[in-house]
Amino acid sequence: MALTKKEEITEAALAAAVASVMEGCRAMAAFSDDPGRTTRLYLTPAVKAAHGYLRERMERLGMAVTIDAVGNLHGFYTAEKANAPRLLIASHIDTVPDSGGFDGVLGVILGIALIELLSGKRLPFAIEVIAFPEEEGVRFRLPFLGSRALVGTLEQDLLQRKDANGISVAEAVRNFGLDPTQVPSVKTGSGVLGYFEMHIEQGPVLESLHAPVGVVEAIVGQTRLEVNFRGCANHAGTTPMHLRQDALAGAAEWITVVENAAKRKESLVATVGRIEALPGVGNVVPGEVVCSLDIRHAEDAVRQQAVQQLIDAGEALATRRGLVFTTKTLLDQPAEPMDSALTAVLAQAVESAGYAPHKMPSGAGHDAMIVAPFMPAAMLFLRSPGGISHHPDESVLTEDVLAALRVGMNFLELLAAG
Amino acid sequence: MALTKKEEITEAALAAAVASVMEGCRAMAAFSDDPGRTTRLYLTPAVKAAHGYLRERMERLGMAVTIDAVGNLHGFYTAEKANAPRLLIASHIDTVPDSGGFDGVLGVILGIALIELLSGKRLPFAIEVIAFPEEEGVRFRLPFLGSRALVGTLEQDLLQRKDANGISVAEAVRNFGLDPTQVPSVKTGSGVLGYFEMHIEQGPVLESLHAPVGVVEAIVGQTRLEVNFRGCANHAGTTPMHLRQDALAGAAEWITVVENAAKRKESLVATVGRIEALPGVGNVVPGEVVCSLDIRHAEDAVRQQAVQQLIDAGEALATRRGLVFTTKTLLDQPAEPMDSALTAVLAQAVESAGYAPHKMPSGAGHDAMIVAPFMPAAMLFLRSPGGISHHPDESVLTEDVLAALRVGMNFLELLAAG
Repeated sequence: MALTKKEEITEAALAAAVASVMEGCRAMAAFSDDPGRTTRLYLTPAVKAAHGYLRERMERLGMAVTIDAVGNLHGFYTAEKANAPRLLIASHIDTVPDSGGFDGVLGVILGIALIELLSGKRLPFAIEVIAFPEEEGVRFRLPFLGSRALVGTLEQDLLQRKDANGISVAEAVRNFGLDPTQVPSVKTGSGVLGYFEMHIEQGPVLESLHAPVGVVEAIVGQTRLEVNFRGCANHAGTTPMHLRQDALAGAAEWITVVENAAKRKESLVATVGRIEALPGVGNVVPGEVVCSLDIRHAEDAVRQQAVQQLIDAGEALATRRGLVFTTKTLLDQPAEPMDSALTAVLAQAVESAGYAPHKMPSGAGHDAMIVAPFMPAAMLFLRSPGGISHHPDESVLTEDVLAALRVGMNFLELLAAG
Repeated sequence: MALTKKEEITEAALAAAVASVMEGCRAMAAFSDDPGRTTRLYLTPAVKAAHGYLRERMERLGMAVTIDAVGNLHGFYTAEKANAPRLLIASHIDTVPDSGGFDGVLGVILGIALIELLSGKRLPFAIEVIAFPEEEGVRFRLPFLGSRALVGTLEQDLLQRKDANGISVAEAVRNFGLDPTQVPSVKTGSGVLGYFEMHIEQGPVLESLHAPVGVVEAIVGQTRLEVNFRGCANHAGTTPMHLRQDALAGAAEWITVVENAAKRKESLVATVGRIEALPGVGNVVPGEVVCSLDIRHAEDAVRQQAVQQLIDAGEALATRRGLVFTTKTLLDQPAEPMDSALTAVLAQAVESAGYAPHKMPSGAGHDAMIVAPFMPAAMLFLRSPGGISHHPDESVLTEDVLAALRVGMNFLELLAAG
């Protein structure tokens, strides 16, 4: 597979591809539901405009473009032979409100840039670049709509879910010029070699390691609890400390336990993000506290053990304080490992591009986690300056885009050679 | 002063007085702005009805009743001689919304019951029983309106303060049939021997000591702070523990410091009653926390030292965590000691009634604290079952009413003898 050998990609071609990627992300950011900011929700007119832009770029490269019944845009780059397997390179093009320009979009534009760098050369496998139109779950509180349809796990009744204006998913699909009855046919056929997603990290780890890219080993599993401490509301002036059942004092002690437990365990993250004390008045000892716990780890056993340990600790300290501690599990989502063989190839591609193959979990959910149970999936993270994402200040360094392109071309080469 | 000697008050008379007190409080509870609940705000028709009831009871005892320009009801019980000094026995008859029947009211009804027990016998001093119409500060967010007028500290411009319906204090006074221009004349004249207030404790201390009554040594001083922790909001999944500036984790550590500091110092109470974490979403590391601190002690130096210690601790832990800690002082009110001589007499009255003279601070504010800078003041607490107050379940034990009456009669006797 000499066509993708490193020495055959000139530095000039790479520099041009980097510029093309940055220009592509900038162009996509302008397709917005909300002028002056970047907000692109599922199947809005901004998505129509974005599709037009992507289609034009893909067709210019000789790719065949189709849009399926949930609005996934597919660009096919044929293999050197017919009936060859396909490599999917995908990410999402929807955004959170007032977002930056790289979350999701970058992965799609990088996929197109890899096709550009191939300069028309064909590989033993076809490449299908996919732009998912819904990953964030903003419009219908229904994340991963595109990737779920792709692997056939988008339940039919979810098409009746309505947005804030009372428009259902099915209506949105129809309004976009698509046929919602065809959603089951979106499910991708056999012959998929693998799934490859490039995405900004959206966290500070790679920056803290001075690493441009990282190899995702697993999407972390996640437990979300609603936690309740019940004590007794009392007058803040007339109730001596030893006669109190202060729900907030108990919750505060527990939050320090949560933090310490997570700090002690490698790669465990635990967060209390929401807290409410009742009655919530400065001169009344809180009688009740409701707070959240979000806890994530790449290994389910580690996460589950930590959850149990924190529940036990909550119960113990509540008993000691005369409080009642209860929890409600809102989410218990297992970790989703990436494919070990495909990930090993990706790590090798990183190394042969001259970078340390830093392996890491993804603390956030991604389309890769939806498809991973159905096909070999691998995921490359690009450094997020300042760890900033879901914000207009979200950025990516051009040197990291260059790194991702080198890695991507090596990855294609290794797969072609394999 | 043989007239108030213990042996001359029969057990039957005391039992009748206890019944009269309980019946009086029950009757007063029915005068409400809100049928079915007890809510009696400043100068509402319910106050007019309550005044009618009190006036009738007082006049039946030969007391001369007047209502001054802020609505304080005064019942005069003359001394054995003209131009004798006066002992004021006072408390308030307004309530919080949906209150119990004893907070404030009990002190007024107990004052009347002491006159009943005197059975027309005269003392070397006159007794003026006063019912303040506003202590809670509900209607005009203006507490202690009656007692402030009594000692001349009710600033004239406060009469323009408006309630939720846009009615000013002055208008409310006028609507009640009184003349707001006469408010300055409410200030009590010279010749006051002292001020005596009986009030439910509104806390659990006496109950925990199995004591029916307690002698208040001082109304605690109070500092209220608004406390702010500023860190950095981050993704709860992608931000490792060691790269976080979690404002809530910092606040939680500080709240445990607050609790421990108060527990270590006798009679110090410190409360974080209100807390808000921002953005307040389960999957975002809190970037900011705003919370309250309420801290009280009978000695100003102890309170001020504790406040400084907690500010220092907050700054230290914030620095260690990469947070910014700031505070804003909302209230810094000094402690108000009761008169030591009059309080000694009260303690002696408690002891000679056969009870342990348990001395204690008042953690809540009372009219006694308003008048104390202007005249000798003493205050007796009655046990609050369950520590419950400001609630329909607020109660008082008949045995404790009996104790208060015994103590009150002894107090009058000792003052008469003194």
